[in-house]
Amino acid sequence: MSQYQVTQKTKIKRLPDRAEYDRETIHGILDEALICHVGFVVDDQPYVIPTIHARVGDTLYLHGSAASRMLWALGKGANACVTVTLLDGLVLARTAFHHSMNYRSVVILGPLEEVVDPDVRNKVLDAIAKHINPGRLAEARRPNRKELKATIVVKIQISEASAKIRTGPPGDDDEDYDLPVWAGVIPLSLQPGKPIPDPLLKEGIDMPDYVIKYAPDDWHRSK
Amino acid sequence: MSQYQVTQKTKIKRLPDRAEYDRETIHGILDEALICHVGFVVDDQPYVIPTIHARVGDTLYLHGSAASRMLWALGKGANACVTVTLLDGLVLARTAFHHSMNYRSVVILGPLEEVVDPDVRNKVLDAIAKHINPGRLAEARRPNRKELKATIVVKIQISEASAKIRTGPPGDDDEDYDLPVWAGVIPLSLQPGKPIPDPLLKEGIDMPDYVIKYAPDDWHRSK
Repeated sequence: MSQYQVTQKTKIKRLPDRAEYDRETIHGILDEALICHVGFVVDDQPYVIPTIHARVGDTLYLHGSAASRMLWALGKGANACVTVTLLDGLVLARTAFHHSMNYRSVVILGPLEEVVDPDVRNKVLDAIAKHINPGRLAEARRPNRKELKATIVVKIQISEASAKIRTGPPGDDDEDYDLPVWAGVIPLSLQPGKPIPDPLLKEGIDMPDYVIKYAPDDWHRSK
Repeated sequence: MSQYQVTQKTKIKRLPDRAEYDRETIHGILDEALICHVGFVVDDQPYVIPTIHARVGDTLYLHGSAASRMLWALGKGANACVTVTLLDGLVLARTAFHHSMNYRSVVILGPLEEVVDPDVRNKVLDAIAKHINPGRLAEARRPNRKELKATIVVKIQISEASAKIRTGPPGDDDEDYDLPVWAGVIPLSLQPGKPIPDPLLKEGIDMPDYVIKYAPDDWHRSK
């Protein structure tokens, strides 16, 4: 399993036993997360903005409106930080101090750069559509010239990257295990609800399989 | 309904119809979110780190290990950005271009400041415990002197703050509504799974009501 190089900036100093640097772990977290948070600086003020991403190989891509002040700033080689966090559970310890969350997060540092090659841009937009829902690519109308012009694509190399992961039960101090307090984990995960067809949907268009499959069990039972 | 003042930095320029500045909306999003992402700058490099927060009035509090490089940097009045994002759904449009997400996000800008007053610190640590799970405060052992010493608390005023919200069905261009493509929303929400008692839990300690209530329907059905 190949590892990303650990640098001074990505070396995790707090709770280093939660750190992971291997490619497979980092890619898995990036691919599972539906959104990331991008950090960048304008006039000494940091900003953190949520956005959609997609990974292709060792590159992470973001896209947005060509009118976005964030992507303008980023596309010119600004230093950025892209962070992805999956929340996996509430960790209820016997002591307030050892309460925690189970999570899997990735931090990527580096400059962002605008992608201008039309072929790469097309592939990236496909990857982002697939990332939202793999079924959409074959159905939705592809971007036309006007839409492509209105879209900016930027990339960051997944190179200075680290993951931080907490799993498992709470970790109380030895002397606290005798306390008469329930302890454990409440798992959390992002779950789909019942699909809501667009009120303007034309008659005779069935819900596609990939949407039906996304729906929760109780929706299937009620059909 | 009172509003936060809109400043040059918080005025939302992209899709301004999604912007909200009223106190109730912003507080509601902050209180519902279990984690935030904190952006700060060290040596021109922005960092974005996920962490737990709690709001008390018009102040947002973060806490962590006194050994954390993030909180050291932040506690000294560094400019920061705290962003909270709730992902509410996948928006599947007839066109790739108009695919989107439904979400509610808040961005708070400003300096962070360490909280040193012991009474305020205690109240904040209680608020954070409550934010994770209101039921825990009465049960878990409170922080002792050593634990309090190992904890740093920082605050940011909720003043330069804005919310951005997208709800509802996809918005395609007029001429695309005739396309034979399914469109709609797949709602998403963070859902609890079956509670997992700590394997080291002492016998005879029942799962508390507030944990049972958190559990999903199918767990209750299986009991």
